Amino acid sequence: MSYFDAASSAPLHPVARQALHASLDEGWADPARLYREGRRARLLLDAAREAAADAVGCRPDELVFTSSGTRAVHAGIAGALAGRRRAGGHLVVSAVEHSSVLHSAEVHEAAGGTVTEVGVDRGGAVSPEGYAEALREDTALACLQSANHEVGTEQPVAEVAEVCRAAGVPLLVDAAQSLAWGRVDGGWSLLTGSAHKWGGPAGVGLLAVRKGVRFAAQGPADERESGRAAGFENIPAIVAAVASLRAVRAEADAERARLRELTERIRERVPALVPDVEVVGDPVRRLPHVVTFSCLYVDGETLLHELDAVGFSVSSGSSCTSSTLTPSHVLRAMGVLSEGNVRVSLPAGTEAAEVERFLGALPGVVAGVREKLGAPAGPTAGAEGASLVVDALGKRCPLPVIELAKVIGDVPVGGTVTVLADDEAARLDIPAWCEMRGQEYVGERPADHGRAHVVRRSS
Amino acid sequence: MSYFDAASSAPLHPVARQALHASLDEGWADPARLYREGRRARLLLDAAREAAADAVGCRPDELVFTSSGTRAVHAGIAGALAGRRRAGGHLVVSAVEHSSVLHSAEVHEAAGGTVTEVGVDRGGAVSPEGYAEALREDTALACLQSANHEVGTEQPVAEVAEVCRAAGVPLLVDAAQSLAWGRVDGGWSLLTGSAHKWGGPAGVGLLAVRKGVRFAAQGPADERESGRAAGFENIPAIVAAVASLRAVRAEADAERARLRELTERIRERVPALVPDVEVVGDPVRRLPHVVTFSCLYVDGETLLHELDAVGFSVSSGSSCTSSTLTPSHVLRAMGVLSEGNVRVSLPAGTEAAEVERFLGALPGVVAGVREKLGAPAGPTAGAEGASLVVDALGKRCPLPVIELAKVIGDVPVGGTVTVLADDEAARLDIPAWCEMRGQEYVGERPADHGRAHVVRRSS
Repeated sequence: MSYFDAASSAPLHPVARQALHASLDEGWADPARLYREGRRARLLLDAAREAAADAVGCRPDELVFTSSGTRAVHAGIAGALAGRRRAGGHLVVSAVEHSSVLHSAEVHEAAGGTVTEVGVDRGGAVSPEGYAEALREDTALACLQSANHEVGTEQPVAEVAEVCRAAGVPLLVDAAQSLAWGRVDGGWSLLTGSAHKWGGPAGVGLLAVRKGVRFAAQGPADERESGRAAGFENIPAIVAAVASLRAVRAEADAERARLRELTERIRERVPALVPDVEVVGDPVRRLPHVVTFSCLYVDGETLLHELDAVGFSVSSGSSCTSSTLTPSHVLRAMGVLSEGNVRVSLPAGTEAAEVERFLGALPGVVAGVREKLGAPAGPTAGAEGASLVVDALGKRCPLPVIELAKVIGDVPVGGTVTVLADDEAARLDIPAWCEMRGQEYVGERPADHGRAHVVRRSS
Repeated sequence: MSYFDAASSAPLHPVARQALHASLDEGWADPARLYREGRRARLLLDAAREAAADAVGCRPDELVFTSSGTRAVHAGIAGALAGRRRAGGHLVVSAVEHSSVLHSAEVHEAAGGTVTEVGVDRGGAVSPEGYAEALREDTALACLQSANHEVGTEQPVAEVAEVCRAAGVPLLVDAAQSLAWGRVDGGWSLLTGSAHKWGGPAGVGLLAVRKGVRFAAQGPADERESGRAAGFENIPAIVAAVASLRAVRAEADAERARLRELTERIRERVPALVPDVEVVGDPVRRLPHVVTFSCLYVDGETLLHELDAVGFSVSSGSSCTSSTLTPSHVLRAMGVLSEGNVRVSLPAGTEAAEVERFLGALPGVVAGVREKLGAPAGPTAGAEGASLVVDALGKRCPLPVIELAKVIGDVPVGGTVTVLADDEAARLDIPAWCEMRGQEYVGERPADHGRAHVVRRSS
């Protein structure tokens, strides 16, 4: 069994387990109390805060513990927006932020605020210029992840922070994916993190707010954690989380080099081993442990199921996965193929042999899924008319693209295929297929049901 | 060492510790994922939800896990108020609710809502009639604790629920203090709880919302826990929390009888052993493990410190404790003495010998604190004038009462003593002292600085 979904949640680090056990006896009492059990709990909490602040690169009194990374983001954005209300109600986020950021933006918009989403390039990165253009007189806050959770692309945080500083706008950095690897460089104003991403237990997030940043905690008052994180402190879990962060940091340099080599191997080998694959995300400025690719003519849910059956746990941003009917907002913002999408994120300690096993199993698994779906094996031949219409209404990803691929050879070069589809993913995947195949995507227009996607055969 | 502050936080139950250890290996993955680690985590979460629902007395799909009892209250009140927005913006709470409820009420009021606080009797209990009077056409929600956290008084929840039901208003019950002992009877609509109060780990609360109750979760959207509790689920802690709840419930009948006897002994013996003590809270309808009393002429912080020094960890609602300058809102609502206040809340397993040790130590500790403060040892003699003014401005609790007690014997029966004081606690403690001493409290009026409290000597 190989668990390759560390970007969702990492298994508990052995050091975290030890620290949790040790602090269950010392850390259960209320740290606000004056008696010895309370004082002991307070000592543990204070020590954890100092160590976490050191790992983050801030002062202990700038850092509070929350009950999750999501809560840290929600509380951080709400507090920063409220603290800067007099500056205005404009919020800037990238289009590829974690859902906790985007959902906070939705709430802000619903309450009368305005939001600008900064787009990304095909590699998933924003540009400092994009942020500079988005900032306005009335911008209260800007948010940017340190690295993307789906494709691993690292963002130019220091440069964006400089742009924000020049404009007098605080920058909140969601560092959930990168905090295991090191501090976030640059002049950020607020920073959030999530312990279970770095091998700590669930139930612990962190929120750092630099001194001087205007911040007004929202929600009912609560005296704990400087009024920024309501509820009884979860001290044993906090102690374990911080112990784990220190442990993974101590191993970070060695693991970074090792895992980077393994993901590099996946990036190189998968397109060679599996036809019609697009590796997505920045090839250089990226997290060491994450690699993401999409497979044409493959249904993501079936692919995950088959990979699970042969012993690999990965995740997918495909629309055809689990409950969602739309492709991942990250892949959509990047404009890359979403069908048959696989994210491999290696936990610390992953062996090279596991990666080789994965590379050995993947081609057969993908071929099997494609065969079941009746996907085209290679370029098709024949030229029967100047234009064709394919009715893929009611068919879900990846079927519209499979139907298109089956008939593209039936029109002459210069002729068009119009695909009628009502699956949201087709809007992303048909253009992506054209790009991969060197065909021309003419555009889409509304049709009676769904949309008509027009493709011109170029080769 | 005897830890007598279970109502703040109970030590981890051995069963919770075992369950936590066992589920760390199985419960760390994302339960929303389709691979085996995710499915395993999901199974644990589902099983925990079923067991918790059984313990609470609701359906599993009515119960979500939150990151704390405080968060459960915040989310429950905000969601119920928003769900009933069309009914109106009126909220009813008792005056002795936990701060998480009262702070939610403050936020509601700040946002334009209205709040009615239902008062309590001298024992700390509300009356169903009080709720009936408070309910209005536009009442969206009523809240009532199952039992009070400071004095242990049980509230008439079933009767109040019936009053609410008749008026078509949902009732939210904060069951944090009583869930260890059993289900909450009656037709509540929403219920909240907190695991570390029943020997579970910190970081777990629960919120039950009955089917049919209008509920609109507030804050940024999040798909976890039916959209009612944002953030990655803390499954090992949830499993441990539920295991602990089942374990304490299995022991509840035996422990209830045992601890009730021990607290009854404290209720009886403390007034006999220590002069000038008022035991507060309902003597009959009360939690089995909580007993609260206040000691005249004693500073709560010093008392806690001295009790800690001789091995007892208790808490206090005195104003002279820790950072707060006002007496506990619970004691104030009850109109009872707040100075020298001590809450003893026994954890499961407390031995009778520990309680005897406490009873043996308390008289000497209280006498020592009183001696340091120069408190009157007994009734004073002499009658020099018809009225006296005592300047206690700038003096903190319990000094104003001590000054009063020192001079009351200097005026004849029928004469008055006027105490000038600017300490908030004096407003509660001077009338309470009069009641205990059989003197007449005439009233208070604003003075140049602070207030003038007038007391007439009756005996």
